[in-house]
Amino acid sequence: MDFSYSAKTKDYLARLDAFMREHIEPYENQYQKENYRLNSTPHWREWQVPPRVAELKQLAKEQGLWNFFLPDNELGAGLTTLEYAPLAERMGRSLLAPEVFNCNAPDTGNMEVLYHFGDDPQQEQWLTPLLNGDIRSVFCMTEPDVASSDATNMQTTIKADGSDWVINGRKWWSTGLGHPDAEIAIVMGLTDEDADKHHRHSMVLLPLNTPGVNIERMLPALGEYDAPYGHGEVVFDNVRVPKENIIVGPGAGFKIAQGRLGPGRIHHCMRAIGAAERALELFIERGVSRIAFGEPLMKLGGNTERLADLRVAIDQARLLTLHAAWQIDNVGAMKAIKEISAIKLVAPNVLQRVVDETMQLFGGASMCHDTPLPGLLTVARSLRIADGPDAVHRATIAKTELKQREKQLKGRSND
Amino acid sequence: MDFSYSAKTKDYLARLDAFMREHIEPYENQYQKENYRLNSTPHWREWQVPPRVAELKQLAKEQGLWNFFLPDNELGAGLTTLEYAPLAERMGRSLLAPEVFNCNAPDTGNMEVLYHFGDDPQQEQWLTPLLNGDIRSVFCMTEPDVASSDATNMQTTIKADGSDWVINGRKWWSTGLGHPDAEIAIVMGLTDEDADKHHRHSMVLLPLNTPGVNIERMLPALGEYDAPYGHGEVVFDNVRVPKENIIVGPGAGFKIAQGRLGPGRIHHCMRAIGAAERALELFIERGVSRIAFGEPLMKLGGNTERLADLRVAIDQARLLTLHAAWQIDNVGAMKAIKEISAIKLVAPNVLQRVVDETMQLFGGASMCHDTPLPGLLTVARSLRIADGPDAVHRATIAKTELKQREKQLKGRSND
Amino acid sequence: MDFSYSAKTKDYLARLDAFMREHIEPYENQYQKENYRLNSTPHWREWQVPPRVAELKQLAKEQGLWNFFLPDNELGAGLTTLEYAPLAERMGRSLLAPEVFNCNAPDTGNMEVLYHFGDDPQQEQWLTPLLNGDIRSVFCMTEPDVASSDATNMQTTIKADGSDWVINGRKWWSTGLGHPDAEIAIVMGLTDEDADKHHRHSMVLLPLNTPGVNIERMLPALGEYDAPYGHGEVVFDNVRVPKENIIVGPGAGFKIAQGRLGPGRIHHCMRAIGAAERALELFIERGVSRIAFGEPLMKLGGNTERLADLRVAIDQARLLTLHAAWQIDNVGAMKAIKEISAIKLVAPNVLQRVVDETMQLFGGASMCHDTPLPGLLTVARSLRIADGPDAVHRATIAKTELKQREKQLKGRSND
Amino acid sequence: MDFSYSAKTKDYLARLDAFMREHIEPYENQYQKENYRLNSTPHWREWQVPPRVAELKQLAKEQGLWNFFLPDNELGAGLTTLEYAPLAERMGRSLLAPEVFNCNAPDTGNMEVLYHFGDDPQQEQWLTPLLNGDIRSVFCMTEPDVASSDATNMQTTIKADGSDWVINGRKWWSTGLGHPDAEIAIVMGLTDEDADKHHRHSMVLLPLNTPGVNIERMLPALGEYDAPYGHGEVVFDNVRVPKENIIVGPGAGFKIAQGRLGPGRIHHCMRAIGAAERALELFIERGVSRIAFGEPLMKLGGNTERLADLRVAIDQARLLTLHAAWQIDNVGAMKAIKEISAIKLVAPNVLQRVVDETMQLFGGASMCHDTPLPGLLTVARSLRIADGPDAVHRATIAKTELKQREKQLKGRSND
Repeated sequence: MDFSYSAKTKDYLARLDAFMREHIEPYENQYQKENYRLNSTPHWREWQVPPRVAELKQLAKEQGLWNFFLPDNELGAGLTTLEYAPLAERMGRSLLAPEVFNCNAPDTGNMEVLYHFGDDPQQEQWLTPLLNGDIRSVFCMTEPDVASSDATNMQTTIKADGSDWVINGRKWWSTGLGHPDAEIAIVMGLTDEDADKHHRHSMVLLPLNTPGVNIERMLPALGEYDAPYGHGEVVFDNVRVPKENIIVGPGAGFKIAQGRLGPGRIHHCMRAIGAAERALELFIERGVSRIAFGEPLMKLGGNTERLADLRVAIDQARLLTLHAAWQIDNVGAMKAIKEISAIKLVAPNVLQRVVDETMQLFGGASMCHDTPLPGLLTVARSLRIADGPDAVHRATIAKTELKQREKQLKGRSND
Repeated sequence: MDFSYSAKTKDYLARLDAFMREHIEPYENQYQKENYRLNSTPHWREWQVPPRVAELKQLAKEQGLWNFFLPDNELGAGLTTLEYAPLAERMGRSLLAPEVFNCNAPDTGNMEVLYHFGDDPQQEQWLTPLLNGDIRSVFCMTEPDVASSDATNMQTTIKADGSDWVINGRKWWSTGLGHPDAEIAIVMGLTDEDADKHHRHSMVLLPLNTPGVNIERMLPALGEYDAPYGHGEVVFDNVRVPKENIIVGPGAGFKIAQGRLGPGRIHHCMRAIGAAERALELFIERGVSRIAFGEPLMKLGGNTERLADLRVAIDQARLLTLHAAWQIDNVGAMKAIKEISAIKLVAPNVLQRVVDETMQLFGGASMCHDTPLPGLLTVARSLRIADGPDAVHRATIAKTELKQREKQLKGRSND
Repeated sequence: MDFSYSAKTKDYLARLDAFMREHIEPYENQYQKENYRLNSTPHWREWQVPPRVAELKQLAKEQGLWNFFLPDNELGAGLTTLEYAPLAERMGRSLLAPEVFNCNAPDTGNMEVLYHFGDDPQQEQWLTPLLNGDIRSVFCMTEPDVASSDATNMQTTIKADGSDWVINGRKWWSTGLGHPDAEIAIVMGLTDEDADKHHRHSMVLLPLNTPGVNIERMLPALGEYDAPYGHGEVVFDNVRVPKENIIVGPGAGFKIAQGRLGPGRIHHCMRAIGAAERALELFIERGVSRIAFGEPLMKLGGNTERLADLRVAIDQARLLTLHAAWQIDNVGAMKAIKEISAIKLVAPNVLQRVVDETMQLFGGASMCHDTPLPGLLTVARSLRIADGPDAVHRATIAKTELKQREKQLKGRSND
Repeated sequence: MDFSYSAKTKDYLARLDAFMREHIEPYENQYQKENYRLNSTPHWREWQVPPRVAELKQLAKEQGLWNFFLPDNELGAGLTTLEYAPLAERMGRSLLAPEVFNCNAPDTGNMEVLYHFGDDPQQEQWLTPLLNGDIRSVFCMTEPDVASSDATNMQTTIKADGSDWVINGRKWWSTGLGHPDAEIAIVMGLTDEDADKHHRHSMVLLPLNTPGVNIERMLPALGEYDAPYGHGEVVFDNVRVPKENIIVGPGAGFKIAQGRLGPGRIHHCMRAIGAAERALELFIERGVSRIAFGEPLMKLGGNTERLADLRVAIDQARLLTLHAAWQIDNVGAMKAIKEISAIKLVAPNVLQRVVDETMQLFGGASMCHDTPLPGLLTVARSLRIADGPDAVHRATIAKTELKQREKQLKGRSND
């Protein structure tokens, strides 16, 4: 047992940290303002990316701080899930950083899908430009009319018709759909509703300029459109893609989703932990500098106890997430399902709690863009729903625990 | 001891309920859409009130459902704080209703100040049009640069100069400042920083069209501008008002604020409880209608236990608030300070909790305007900061409790 | 709406308070020691009551501070449930007081059963000596082998045989069974397992010296036998009582239990609130007097915030309980089922929480008899199980809430 | 980074597990009963150890399952703190096991003190028989009259007088003081109150049969005497020990205590985690087997969600503790102070929470010796006080966090 990061992680972390402190953190406030100036409109087709972002991406790429997430030595950094996790945490302290290092959701998950499951033409056409950061991508899964936490509810259909797949349905909360560079979506839908539960769904690659793709609106999350990314609601009206656009083949959707979600949740959770660390720094900074009743806030009421509890909660969430990453690397995402559900339950709640307490110290300033707090709250609050609400993960943990205990008792009785 | 509402309350409540069910609730969704269409811009000078609102106000006034909050039989409904509280709760179930019945913050508090402390000319000029619902008003207290929870920090100055008061300073989170009908502000500031803590501040009446009143921006709260009301940041740059614009006189600010805050907190908290009841209805509706894993959500996991805990939390918050209202009516706001702080601590937290749990049942829909949940979350979250953050109220409760206990022990030792 | 206590309550409360301060509180520590000296043995048949207790009972009876709980002007104080509640709270501050004023469980509930449902001979034989405080009684309901929270599980049988009822079964946690003066038990059992759920059970009066009543042991609760009362485990082995010992008649058990439990839970909860007030006083006393790191504990960490939260939690629990009492008085226990379950859920949890936090301030002293804290913890912990564990009450609240909401919606649709 | 246990740990763990399943767990219930039969009296001088315990100790010693805790390859198992931790967890599932493997508190801590700091004669006289399990020992630190969480409060004096140290004072909660084999105590006291805070105290070895050692009583913890160990209150009345009985020398008490407490807290916390795992097993067993309302308890209300939350809480506590152990091994206990305080805060609270929820499923049976739950509750509740109450650890965490942040910011400003 050894809690020290690998030499590779340490090296990347040091360079990432230096880059962020030199190039990203000093720019972040200005980015918020530029972004707001360019994009404070729900008319998402007018959204633009502040030009400095492309420059930062170029710089990061030149320094080899690029595609950390991809477990391939040539195309990415060749890190295990566990080795990548601390980098995700570091990037998660900034809402801008993941984009700069081409480690942003949902692109990372989509690239992983294409890397692990895409065939050569699919990789050439879509993986390569995504890895280069030239285009962005979308993952269309959640639907408004059914409880998407139960994937068997999914209603969007993908039907074979001649040499095409024909897609019909409605998706929403498709993150990144409003981005000017978004070109490709991976769409999950029903190909065979009579198949067993794990072989009903498929994933197809859908270029966003295909006729019948009707993006109806971007959805504000707690009032924020998250421009220039956006979360879209889109209708597929007899949308046709050629048969070769299916990933792996009909019925493989569930299997691909499982492979995608495991590491994806590690990424989300580690970024959430990074965000929580940033919020805790704000808690401390405000606590030691703001004066009320003749004392810094930190000395009033229970603020030191709060600080202690938040510190411990973050540390526990990190260790749990690193352990889950290790499990994924060692036994695979399918066998680490309890550990993955556990971190998906814990990390966003910890972030929400740290942000909530930090907001109390900032008072009025916490509610508006003068602080990053509303943005961090939105991240936390969304993440408690996205990829399965807390309740679904609690159910998974309990179910697995009961099964494991039953198995253990059977094992003993056979001794 | 009797927990039944007074006959007057029951009568008003029945009529209010009927009006809301007939006129307001069926319109509420459409109001949100119209409001969004008219006002989805940070350029607040362009904001408009949807025309139907004025019609509803007229109708309410004609039916005598008007100015419930004012404890005057002629000008208002002549209800005690306790008698008014259930009406505030009922109105709080709608974000629109308080405006329709002329019971909206901060107008109610401002009208109370003018009613209790204004002289005849002040009442004639400002109280009358406010009671008529012809204009709206603003209360300027919180400042960005100091911890406003500690009023002694306040930096805005109100200095005598000839026949004028000259106001200099910066205020923010001045609710309603963006409203097209906002005409008058009550501004709190320092008139004599050498006076004792409770006689340093004064309140003056400031017409918003006075030169030197520079409204810099409206502040979004969790991404929402709350148009057409808005929360403004405003700079007073050598703003002059005549000497007669002071309320009561120099140094009376603290005393007036105390009188204003007691009933005002009852109003806020009862509205919060109404909002919580509405959220709980949404919790139930979604819980019994949404299906996942073959069952209504209500039957899954711990949702029935959640329902029970939320129901009990709301009921306890209501009783605590009604009891505090009774205390205000019987011993005055100054002697009910512990009870008032207690409800200010409890009610917004209960609302936040109910909304948070309800959001989990709504999934993606909870994050955007398709449900009232983001609006309710913003109400809850703001209210945990406005009028003193939780920590300040906890400090007040503890301080008072310790004093009371000490006094009680002294009383015993003198037996 | 009026939160002031009735004149009758105020008068009794003043006299009760004076008696407790003069006679009980100064003796309480000595009582603990005497009791421990006489009864520190699991051999319960040797248990004795410290003689001073009988003297105090006599004194209380002479002063008319006796049988407060009974809503009969001749036999008791003639108070409503609501009027009695504050007296139960006051007595609950002492573990000895309820006995002194003949208001101790389970005697109060048993006396109420006999008062409301007993026939004349039953009342003469058992109610009269109980009201006089000459004997004590036991209520045998909970069984070890089944989940007694679901009364339909009950396995003890009461079968007709000639002119007798024959009782067979095992009961445990029968409070007071070890007391030297315990003479009579009310036993609940199955008389007709084919009847509908609410008419299967009956209650019979069982003199404890009847052959076949085998008391196996007293059960320690968190290590305490609660001598000289005790919680007993008892086997009924073909125990015979004459037919006239049934209360009301066969199948009336459920109905009687409902009538017994409503006010009984008010009593339990108000005593718990009194106990919580006592624990909070200890919290304050320790907090202001114990010094660590150069400061009284109250000034360290989050202790003032804790004090505030505990104060508010107690006040909310009290109001909820008083409101439930009012409901019982006004609509009856059956229609107040949600309110009664709510207080049974809230009050013991509040007590447990206050005791838990107070223990932290007392350190080592909190774990042993040098403080009343272990006793108070045992009261709280037991009460979260007795009369239905928290989960059962949450289920009742949710079920009732869902029904009420459904009814309300139906009512609206019929408008 | 690697979360797998070392080969040595795995090997010991397998053998320990087998031994416990074969020899200890089948005997545990009977041990409780024998122990109760022999020792259900507060007259502690009559306490005896059930004879089977000595046999089990002998067997364990023969199998080399002995003194795991000692980081010495000859005298103990030669494990690091991190390597020993999983064994402590495994033993913690039983209240008897730590004694059987000679890994019981406070002996382990005392042996470590003697191993690291004792001179040759001290080791020969006391360490050897302790390592052999022939005698038991006591650690006298906590005092009743002062807040012992602040060590500077300590009032027991150790004064030089000729060739002796003379000890005067009162200690309590000295664990193991009632054990028939207890022969030696390590006593901490003031040798020089004018020295700086960290050099005022010393530790001396005090044979318990020395004149002037007056053991006044054993203290029940939540009603349990924890026989045959006991927690004693003892007065030192001019007790004399020769000068060579001091450990290291005058003023070394604080330094020794620090070295003792770090690993000791790991042991306590890992045992607490083992106890929590055992309670969780009981939660599951009861949940799936006990029927109410026609369903196993596990399917009712929120019990699956509870199971999930408890599982996650335990896993997080374990990882945090293992990480703290790793820190101790790598940077030493002094530099790992934040991590050590964090686990001392987290682990006992997790245990208390798991036990509390499990008690709810067991109902009445949870309150008495028919289940191990009261014993586990007492362990949890005591541990939140012993070795510093939660509040002290929160203060340490906050203080260290603030210092580290300040240092970090200084570091950055010097870049």
